[in-house]
Amino acid sequence: MPETGADPLVFAYITAGSKEEALRIGRTLVEERLAACANVLDGMTSVYRWNDAVEQAEEAILIAKTRSSLFDRLTARVRGLHSYDTPCVVELAVGRGNPAYLEWLRAETA
Amino acid sequence: MPETGADPLVFAYITAGSKEEALRIGRTLVEERLAACANVLDGMTSVYRWNDAVEQAEEAILIAKTRSSLFDRLTARVRGLHSYDTPCVVELAVGRGNPAYLEWLRAETA
Amino acid sequence: MPETGADPLVFAYITAGSKEEALRIGRTLVEERLAACANVLDGMTSVYRWNDAVEQAEEAILIAKTRSSLFDRLTARVRGLHSYDTPCVVELAVGRGNPAYLEWLRAETA
Repeated sequence: MPETGADPLVFAYITAGSKEEALRIGRTLVEERLAACANVLDGMTSVYRWNDAVEQAEEAILIAKTRSSLFDRLTARVRGLHSYDTPCVVELAVGRGNPAYLEWLRAETA
Repeated sequence: MPETGADPLVFAYITAGSKEEALRIGRTLVEERLAACANVLDGMTSVYRWNDAVEQAEEAILIAKTRSSLFDRLTARVRGLHSYDTPCVVELAVGRGNPAYLEWLRAETA
Repeated sequence: MPETGADPLVFAYITAGSKEEALRIGRTLVEERLAACANVLDGMTSVYRWNDAVEQAEEAILIAKTRSSLFDRLTARVRGLHSYDTPCVVELAVGRGNPAYLEWLRAETA
């Protein structure tokens, strides 16, 4: 089933300071119907520049599955919930999918 | 090398109930040339609503790399192989890439 | 903030033979400003066909966050740094995001 509707589905790719923080944010997004589902991966190591030095940190990844039309509200909510001043929240477009799963995802974010 | 061909490459993002299930499905997709390669990540925690309660489960992620034209057949095959009634199978579009790797991916799904 | 600029942001999805290799490549990309940030996930199992047999290997995933205009240079650099002859380097398009994070990502790759 091609996702040709006016409100396509998207992944929000988010990083968090720990598995606990990622689960807490993901649970809130699901409770508030800003996402149908959250997938949390622990044990991510990030490498980035900070004040001209290259730093390394242990983090977790949170993938929140939602509708395109909810992405900006989701981003604002994550900023309010997050321990970081400038959390990574970026959108990855979803194309086709298992039709029954896409329907479930839409129903859970309606 | 821009992926401007008529049959672009895609990732199928799939979740499974265990690393073993993800490996079993991934191996079948590769054996049947429905995917060139499968990447399995264990230790994912999912959060989702079920019957008005927010549930949490331990799962694994399976990323299957294939051609756009094979995605619907791959999805149908995963539904047949999967222990879930409504498995998550969604498409993420791939753009450019290492030319030799893209050629390998195309050859393995021809 | 929609990513409507002339130089959108992208993820480079890369696989490596170990966490150490992924961190080494990621650190070099950040040091050389070919990426603002690298996310390394260890413990990935890949399944693929090689010489008509289906093989399995332990790998790591490296997600490098950069600008679209740097992707080809990043790919060439990864090929030079990588232990594989034909490493997986593919592009995933990024859409919207936390505005402050997107600004930071642009500044770190300027």
